[in-house]
Amino acid sequence: MQIRKNFSSDNVVPACPAIMAALMAANEGTAPAYGADAWTARLQQVAADVFEHPVQVFPVATGTAANALALAATTPPFGAILCDESAHIVQAECGAPDFYTGGARLLPIPSEDGRMRPDALSYVLDRHPAHNVLNNLPTTLSLTQATEWGTVYDPAQIAELAARARARGMAVHLDGSRLANAIASLGCTPAEATWKAGIDILALGATKNGAMTAEAVLVFDPARAEHFARRRKRGGHDWSKQRFLSAQLLAYLQDDLWLQNARQANAMAHRLAGGLFRHPGARLVYETQANEIFVALPDPAVAHLRAAGYVFREWRTPAGLNGTVIRLVTSYDTHIADVDALLATLAAI
Amino acid sequence: MQIRKNFSSDNVVPACPAIMAALMAANEGTAPAYGADAWTARLQQVAADVFEHPVQVFPVATGTAANALALAATTPPFGAILCDESAHIVQAECGAPDFYTGGARLLPIPSEDGRMRPDALSYVLDRHPAHNVLNNLPTTLSLTQATEWGTVYDPAQIAELAARARARGMAVHLDGSRLANAIASLGCTPAEATWKAGIDILALGATKNGAMTAEAVLVFDPARAEHFARRRKRGGHDWSKQRFLSAQLLAYLQDDLWLQNARQANAMAHRLAGGLFRHPGARLVYETQANEIFVALPDPAVAHLRAAGYVFREWRTPAGLNGTVIRLVTSYDTHIADVDALLATLAAI
Amino acid sequence: MQIRKNFSSDNVVPACPAIMAALMAANEGTAPAYGADAWTARLQQVAADVFEHPVQVFPVATGTAANALALAATTPPFGAILCDESAHIVQAECGAPDFYTGGARLLPIPSEDGRMRPDALSYVLDRHPAHNVLNNLPTTLSLTQATEWGTVYDPAQIAELAARARARGMAVHLDGSRLANAIASLGCTPAEATWKAGIDILALGATKNGAMTAEAVLVFDPARAEHFARRRKRGGHDWSKQRFLSAQLLAYLQDDLWLQNARQANAMAHRLAGGLFRHPGARLVYETQANEIFVALPDPAVAHLRAAGYVFREWRTPAGLNGTVIRLVTSYDTHIADVDALLATLAAI
Amino acid sequence: MQIRKNFSSDNVVPACPAIMAALMAANEGTAPAYGADAWTARLQQVAADVFEHPVQVFPVATGTAANALALAATTPPFGAILCDESAHIVQAECGAPDFYTGGARLLPIPSEDGRMRPDALSYVLDRHPAHNVLNNLPTTLSLTQATEWGTVYDPAQIAELAARARARGMAVHLDGSRLANAIASLGCTPAEATWKAGIDILALGATKNGAMTAEAVLVFDPARAEHFARRRKRGGHDWSKQRFLSAQLLAYLQDDLWLQNARQANAMAHRLAGGLFRHPGARLVYETQANEIFVALPDPAVAHLRAAGYVFREWRTPAGLNGTVIRLVTSYDTHIADVDALLATLAAI
Repeated sequence: MQIRKNFSSDNVVPACPAIMAALMAANEGTAPAYGADAWTARLQQVAADVFEHPVQVFPVATGTAANALALAATTPPFGAILCDESAHIVQAECGAPDFYTGGARLLPIPSEDGRMRPDALSYVLDRHPAHNVLNNLPTTLSLTQATEWGTVYDPAQIAELAARARARGMAVHLDGSRLANAIASLGCTPAEATWKAGIDILALGATKNGAMTAEAVLVFDPARAEHFARRRKRGGHDWSKQRFLSAQLLAYLQDDLWLQNARQANAMAHRLAGGLFRHPGARLVYETQANEIFVALPDPAVAHLRAAGYVFREWRTPAGLNGTVIRLVTSYDTHIADVDALLATLAAI
Repeated sequence: MQIRKNFSSDNVVPACPAIMAALMAANEGTAPAYGADAWTARLQQVAADVFEHPVQVFPVATGTAANALALAATTPPFGAILCDESAHIVQAECGAPDFYTGGARLLPIPSEDGRMRPDALSYVLDRHPAHNVLNNLPTTLSLTQATEWGTVYDPAQIAELAARARARGMAVHLDGSRLANAIASLGCTPAEATWKAGIDILALGATKNGAMTAEAVLVFDPARAEHFARRRKRGGHDWSKQRFLSAQLLAYLQDDLWLQNARQANAMAHRLAGGLFRHPGARLVYETQANEIFVALPDPAVAHLRAAGYVFREWRTPAGLNGTVIRLVTSYDTHIADVDALLATLAAI
Repeated sequence: MQIRKNFSSDNVVPACPAIMAALMAANEGTAPAYGADAWTARLQQVAADVFEHPVQVFPVATGTAANALALAATTPPFGAILCDESAHIVQAECGAPDFYTGGARLLPIPSEDGRMRPDALSYVLDRHPAHNVLNNLPTTLSLTQATEWGTVYDPAQIAELAARARARGMAVHLDGSRLANAIASLGCTPAEATWKAGIDILALGATKNGAMTAEAVLVFDPARAEHFARRRKRGGHDWSKQRFLSAQLLAYLQDDLWLQNARQANAMAHRLAGGLFRHPGARLVYETQANEIFVALPDPAVAHLRAAGYVFREWRTPAGLNGTVIRLVTSYDTHIADVDALLATLAAI
Repeated sequence: MQIRKNFSSDNVVPACPAIMAALMAANEGTAPAYGADAWTARLQQVAADVFEHPVQVFPVATGTAANALALAATTPPFGAILCDESAHIVQAECGAPDFYTGGARLLPIPSEDGRMRPDALSYVLDRHPAHNVLNNLPTTLSLTQATEWGTVYDPAQIAELAARARARGMAVHLDGSRLANAIASLGCTPAEATWKAGIDILALGATKNGAMTAEAVLVFDPARAEHFARRRKRGGHDWSKQRFLSAQLLAYLQDDLWLQNARQANAMAHRLAGGLFRHPGARLVYETQANEIFVALPDPAVAHLRAAGYVFREWRTPAGLNGTVIRLVTSYDTHIADVDALLATLAAI
């Protein structure tokens, strides 16, 4: 068995066998284009079952598309989107939300570990009263679960933030590109992690958790779904052969594949974090609650890992930490041997 | 062997075996995300070889994305895009070009058969002089090859239109969602069909011609490629696992697969058109030069085909024609038996 | 008295004395910025009285701004705006509606004399059903009163068009840059010309009818006014010293100044049209119902007028007419002597 | 003589007599519309003389319009605009730059007193390398002179910032809504304050310094002016009767009116700041270098001033300061008696 040495992201691994099998199975016969196919119809039902709520599902190919379309459906051009400063929509989408909303403003809120605190949210809301037209109107709260720092909100924490947003008439969006990892970590139901905590619209990730390429926007509030299909079409995200997106998502949600994959990724992250915790000189920057580890290592250790063929990304090292912070990401495709090999390499210095 | 009765579009058929095999083969091991993979690198070289020109290739998932991004790269918000009134960008993309360009204006030009005439182009250009700031500035000519009516421009016709546009400093875009069908029909080289005729930027289709989902923007003018990657990113069209797009396109362009598939589709269209031509009461609306047939049939014949299980779309029937115009589209997956069965069904009335 | 020889537009003349006096009077003491001043407050009340309806008034500086903001308030980015093909928003605003709406699509509808016919409207609506997401969704009907060809809709004609739009859930916008001329021509009330005929939102012109620079958006439907102030702000159309806009509009609407000015302009247009009608070789292209005349004259006559110092614009000459079509525009500042001098010059050939 | 008690802003005062006289004088006879008039032509020449550089001048009505149009001319949709966190474009324009650029991203940079420090600029630039398409591309540096906190950059400070931006190929924009105050404060030439320090495009304010309503974009780099007229038109900022904007700006720049007005405002601010400095319990928050004073006063003093009829705005009080911070703004229309009356009121507590 080959040892996987690439820990740079959960999007560098192949699609898992069940997804590829579903794609092959979907490649039979003709099917109506643009979502009028049987796979897409079935997906609506399966998602409603999994989330225990009526829902409209809009499959798209990328997480950026899912986020940007969901934000456009909830944010007018003169609106403001409040989010954590680490959010993918702020840091890594080259302005996709700005583009899709027609120029709405993102208001990044600082936090210690990627989880927005209610007081920090209220502070920004208080400085953007609805009557002051000099400012954009706060219309959308965007949360990320699991966060970009590998931490996980408790549903009660999300509910508190959502309640403060809803008190201002705002919509609540969840960037769930790693939602499966969060649910697996929390042990809660998909419903508890989303609409029961106040989420109106969800960007559900699958690509980082075993799909070839598949994400979906799930709209729990039907009013916000009314014109979604047109926004998706004009964004160029309406696949003619949509069965190939829906088939992946069906396989993903059925038979708990998404949670099984996430549990494997999380378990490997915990095993890896445990090993690093015991390594002298290593210091974990954030609590490892999902499948991402941020760890400060002495520079020689980092160089040693690279020399041994390991692939990972360096991060900005916060003041007060020595060495270099690296990010290690596990996936459904990470196995005990991979983790133990990395730890053994590190121990061999 | 099962008879294919769905002639509604070339996007209702499955992906062809070679494409699926390429997808499976690409699903091995880890690969860098966002286009830093080996498949994408190889694709650049193969495309340059096939088109006999340095070119930058940007894979995306849909034709609407390819068109809209290509137009955004060539058209400022105050620009105008001149195109045939039948163009997909006018009729079927829910305003994607308007969105991606930041509100540029489309100026649809009437034609008889989907092929813009040079005089009609000049007429509109003359009415939009550069000095008149009341009007949008004509910056982009967008042509479609094969056209939406199944006709094909001769390269010299494209060259004449492109020359008139370039005399005004405009860029020339080609919607090539069925370019393979056009090249197969013309018997020319890919180079002759594109940059040698004055095309600056090409939206190359593959989805309608055998891919699962894969299109690409090919930029022949390097200056126009400079910021393309950022536009693609903020449009949500930058796949993290881009190898799965590039692998399809590689298989598509290598070993002439794209032209073989197109030749099969075209041959079946000709066989079908020939049979319809001989059918009493049928009247072909446009010349069949690629893989689309528009034919006026008596209403009972249309009903008879539907009753027999055939699937196709009805079109607006031009004044002066009796009956109903239907569109029949063939693909790489259409076979002689399929065509002959349809003709036999029609003959049986 | 000096003879006015410039008939090129109603925007080439100075502001009328009452407007300038109002500006001077407003230039006293300090006043709160951004519309919290007394003039703006008074304007709301005067407009409600004049239009016999609760209304929110948003002063801006230009007609293009008024139209574009009004359309943005009624049209989502995926919407379509249906209007006459001669409309200012199509022909003369360099894509301002496309920009302000975030890329909505204009659907120009042909007419004979600038007045949209109900059947032509229904024809386009039928081709854009709500369920077809390939097309933009028709959300807004935009009418122009008086039209760009100097004709005037009867309120019943507007009501018929508005009813068909409302049956589709659309909003109805009126470009009223020459509304005063239309009301003066019809002899109806401002209410009958607008909300009683189904208008939801009005761009009311004053600049072409005696103001220095002042237009206003009047919103009859409060729901559509909710976020208007933010759209105006981010468009850069919220004057800090708004009293100088509101003071003009107050003077304009009070004491019937707007209708007096319009009656003078209309009367001069009728006198001029009457003279031209009797001139051999002249042919009026449209009925003169407001303050614009389109007349075909023999080329030597056109040259003779120019040589005599007259200023006017040439228009595209429709097939079937000889000579050259010129446009002659009268204003509040056109007097009998001006008209008679032109006619005498023409008669002297 | 009446005492002026409104210190809330420099936009609450009337237009100065010379500006109103120029408006009246411009209201004579007909003039070509849309900037083809004699006033606008003369303005180009006067501005070139005043700034000692070829320049294209585009008059508009508001500072928000001037900023947003200037930024749109320099910033593509995927660009980033770097500016001080206090900038008007960040805090007070409801997203106008985001709108006009098509969704570019503002990157606010913290500072102590509104003047960006070179190291802070470089820090942000280093975190946004051109090759990383996850981020918007830094394309524009936007500075404000005088700053929002009433401080003034030395031209050498601007030159240093501009040099760092230009090293990255960025354009440099100056929000000069109070540029006259800065120039009067520095005693430098307009050229030294702008293009000689590296400014490419200037939003020149006049409204806050004596105009009725008039601002202008001055483009020093001709390449950036090429399509400016179209952007202005589609923004709705192209006045038909442009002579009324240009006449204001002509009067403003001719005979040093702008600098005289600014000197009066600055002198009154210094007199007021001097008095406040000597007042026990008052603490100046920033150095008073132009016409804005930020001063922390004990709460009873603030209440006493309000009770005496004074109008001013409260500001967020920084940690570590007691009482309440208020902003006092002087203008060309502030006189010694006004300042002394305020100080006497304060002393009477």
